[in-house]
Amino acid sequence: MKRLEDIHQLVKDGMASLDWNIAPNGLYDPIAYVLSMGGKRLRPALVLLACQLFDERIEKALYPALGFEVYHNFTLLHDDVMDKADMRRGKPTVHKKWDENTAILSGDAMIIKAYQLLAKCDASVFKSVFDAFSEAALGVCEGQQYDMEFESRTDVKLTEYLEMIRLKTAVLLAGALKAGALCGGASEKDADLIYKYGIGIGIAFQIKDDLLDVYGDEKKFGKAIGGDIFCNKKTFLLITALEKADESSRKELMAWIAKEQFDRAEKVKAVTAIYDKLDVRTDAEKAMREYYESAITALDMIAVSKTVKQPLYDLAENLLYRED
Amino acid sequence: MKRLEDIHQLVKDGMASLDWNIAPNGLYDPIAYVLSMGGKRLRPALVLLACQLFDERIEKALYPALGFEVYHNFTLLHDDVMDKADMRRGKPTVHKKWDENTAILSGDAMIIKAYQLLAKCDASVFKSVFDAFSEAALGVCEGQQYDMEFESRTDVKLTEYLEMIRLKTAVLLAGALKAGALCGGASEKDADLIYKYGIGIGIAFQIKDDLLDVYGDEKKFGKAIGGDIFCNKKTFLLITALEKADESSRKELMAWIAKEQFDRAEKVKAVTAIYDKLDVRTDAEKAMREYYESAITALDMIAVSKTVKQPLYDLAENLLYRED
Repeated sequence: MKRLEDIHQLVKDGMASLDWNIAPNGLYDPIAYVLSMGGKRLRPALVLLACQLFDERIEKALYPALGFEVYHNFTLLHDDVMDKADMRRGKPTVHKKWDENTAILSGDAMIIKAYQLLAKCDASVFKSVFDAFSEAALGVCEGQQYDMEFESRTDVKLTEYLEMIRLKTAVLLAGALKAGALCGGASEKDADLIYKYGIGIGIAFQIKDDLLDVYGDEKKFGKAIGGDIFCNKKTFLLITALEKADESSRKELMAWIAKEQFDRAEKVKAVTAIYDKLDVRTDAEKAMREYYESAITALDMIAVSKTVKQPLYDLAENLLYRED
Repeated sequence: MKRLEDIHQLVKDGMASLDWNIAPNGLYDPIAYVLSMGGKRLRPALVLLACQLFDERIEKALYPALGFEVYHNFTLLHDDVMDKADMRRGKPTVHKKWDENTAILSGDAMIIKAYQLLAKCDASVFKSVFDAFSEAALGVCEGQQYDMEFESRTDVKLTEYLEMIRLKTAVLLAGALKAGALCGGASEKDADLIYKYGIGIGIAFQIKDDLLDVYGDEKKFGKAIGGDIFCNKKTFLLITALEKADESSRKELMAWIAKEQFDRAEKVKAVTAIYDKLDVRTDAEKAMREYYESAITALDMIAVSKTVKQPLYDLAENLLYRED
């Protein structure tokens, strides 16, 4: 059985083995660049961990794992264009380093490349792996659409928000797990259970992100606190605050959202104070824990030994207690 | 055996049967809009025609056919963003009617949707159909990359140009034919032959496009003559002219290319006069005919009756003599 560290090494070596030095370089260099930026490599690790539950020969899931990572990085690339983000992980984004057309086209090519990597699995499971991937991939687009629509709304309901993050974040994690399980020969029932585990940790993961943005430790978080508050991002905290607020808090919150000229630190401090007063942090932590528990329940039900499932228990816990 | 008209009707009904009225509408409405604009529906027709060579039950190739059409329309959608084109087929483009982010994201979703349609074929041929599609889809991106790079160059060689149009136009036609043949149960050898036929008609088709832009009948062509000349598009005609030109013609041509302020009609007239003097029209027509002949040779070699191949002979001839 492989431990988390071994899995991460396998993913790292796999990513490094992909050859992007092909013509036309104008198309493939930006892909190599995006993929060289690093990141948690969470999705490919999930594919391999899920495969391992059912089959020790996890190499058979390696290329599908890389396919999920390439797809995830495609979403970051196009999201950065749509958000007009200048930097990612401390480096200029592709549309800044090259141009927007390059970012669009190289992203398109990444989708196809992701599918081609995915197809390098056993022929017997390809169709089911393909279906799991396509459903997840489309879900991410739908989630991104909702996310963009939410930008211009201040009446987003918590249920809408949860559906958005399910699509934008959780379904790709869940799809990665399901694909890995299928590569390992899982039954449909077990594949569905691992999918549920993925949805649970995915939503918990995003709520944790929302919490870290406000209540994280700036040094450990790696970016400035309050970024979501600064740009009025509809997070679990903001939506809950708007739902819970009395007349005067609501007015104050709406005033900060509407303000076009402001001091960043002042806004972050004021909005955080409202969050504290309404105690939305507790709501978020409670919801996060519930999704975490639902993930654990699904994982418990998968008919394999506790030992082989241990890395997935650990991973869920790490997500809950992470500080970046 | 189905005739061309029957095939086109099947495609039309198939396209109409796709349901895009799904949430989030902000993502799927633009897809429905793009697909409602019409077009020749050449690629799905090719899928069905190729299937018919090997199996009369062409319904089995219908969804893959629609997948190719959805993918083709995705390329138009993203190309329009990259070209900053305001209109297509007399209607505002998606990024004009909605916005650029919508055009990017809806296009992304179309790629996944195309794959999902493709997957609705017999399980026994899915992997080979998938491979044919993916290779073609990636080729289109590579061709678009070369096309964009050519915009800022004046030293594009004819061989580079032919490789670009092979990728940007021909491989998707060829891939559509190959996928259709595979759905019909073709041997690998026959699938490769129909692919070659597709490359031949694809390149001939693009050279014809270049010719129509300059020598077409404006009324029949459906758009203003000289569009390529106007924006210095590197076409078969321009590249051949630059290669053949003596010192003075070359200088004149380069001056027109460099000019930022000019009268459109005057430029079109002057550049056409240079083309005429150098007789590049004859070169283009000769090359077009050679690619046409190579297509016919490949089609001849496919081991099925002449009768069942007749629509593909007709289609190649129509492409050669078309006026729009």
